[in-house]
Amino acid sequence: MVKGSKSSKNDNFMGASTKQGYEIALKSRDIVKSLISDKISHRSPEERSIIERIVHSTADVEYASLTKMSSDFIQKSLESVKAGKDLLTDINMVKTGINKYEGSVECYINNAETLKLSKNCGITRAASAMRIAAMQGFEGMVVIGNSPTALFEVIKLVENDEMNVESVVGVPVGFVGAAESKMKLHKTDIPHLITEGPKGGTPVAVAVANSIIRLSKELL
Amino acid sequence: MVKGSKSSKNDNFMGASTKQGYEIALKSRDIVKSLISDKISHRSPEERSIIERIVHSTADVEYASLTKMSSDFIQKSLESVKAGKDLLTDINMVKTGINKYEGSVECYINNAETLKLSKNCGITRAASAMRIAAMQGFEGMVVIGNSPTALFEVIKLVENDEMNVESVVGVPVGFVGAAESKMKLHKTDIPHLITEGPKGGTPVAVAVANSIIRLSKELL
Repeated sequence: MVKGSKSSKNDNFMGASTKQGYEIALKSRDIVKSLISDKISHRSPEERSIIERIVHSTADVEYASLTKMSSDFIQKSLESVKAGKDLLTDINMVKTGINKYEGSVECYINNAETLKLSKNCGITRAASAMRIAAMQGFEGMVVIGNSPTALFEVIKLVENDEMNVESVVGVPVGFVGAAESKMKLHKTDIPHLITEGPKGGTPVAVAVANSIIRLSKELL
Repeated sequence: MVKGSKSSKNDNFMGASTKQGYEIALKSRDIVKSLISDKISHRSPEERSIIERIVHSTADVEYASLTKMSSDFIQKSLESVKAGKDLLTDINMVKTGINKYEGSVECYINNAETLKLSKNCGITRAASAMRIAAMQGFEGMVVIGNSPTALFEVIKLVENDEMNVESVVGVPVGFVGAAESKMKLHKTDIPHLITEGPKGGTPVAVAVANSIIRLSKELL
């Protein structure tokens, strides 16, 4: 259904919204497929479309092998998005990139309460933002593209039954804690997608979220 | 001066704004230095600090060799930023990431005029946004993290004396046109930074812009 789906300008295919942009995106998809199709041939059509979009967005074919999903990630994410549940991002760059969701995309990084909690508890703002979201009754898909400490916090909140998470896109980036936070998520029962190792980042997070949103419309 | 500069929480060192975030950023900087210092030892302190921040932001050491700057890029960019001239980004994700500039950060991608011009001229929205900025009298540093067509447009506008550009951070990403657009910029007299090949993207663009902004404060 992914492969055969029709796309129009309004579909915002791979971020394109004009004829010219759409043609570039189509050409890019063909190149991406030629570069990684053998590496992802064992994956489901939905998984392939997500990984193709990550590679399209990063021009980094390594993500074909670095990207891991729990077997329930796509189903749980689609259910959450189809139900219109909130998305929660760690930083505003990720929020800004998720620009076609009909539901709400939340980011608490700059909230006054986040800053206060961060200072009081001696934790990063990104971790504090996750705690504030949980306290405010967040329920939905979490999309972390930058901060390992935010991902560690989400895992802890879920394990303590303090946060209602349908799925987690856990792709923080960096040499300090990112790989460890993703490996920790990978060992939990939380429906998730990760990129192994230090690599990841906002374009990866946005690519996955936008893929899920697009798939939710195609599969309605 | 980069190496020896003192940093406090308020400096927002490498994006960190809390004690915990600052400690992570410092640790990351040490790891980044250990990974790439031999590859960038021939560069100036300012160039090294920019490249270190790119690698910190992407966890991709390849940028140590992919990043190229014209000899006047840092000076022209610092002059532009110190004078408080505008920054112009191709997409809103880049704008969102540049969050410590005291001047104005502009992005015309969603303007009504951009959409109209895009349809009328059969060009992408990102290219159209550059043309609209030029028509509105933009003058300053251009930061392109996503769209090759925006970069091609900026080069054309500058060569036609239709745009006042102090410097260009040209790091669009992707398999269609990105490498070519950057190579074209590299051959011009425009003060510029590029990443060779298909790789680049919003975190690279944001890392460079934020580095320049930070350097402009240290060097005042």
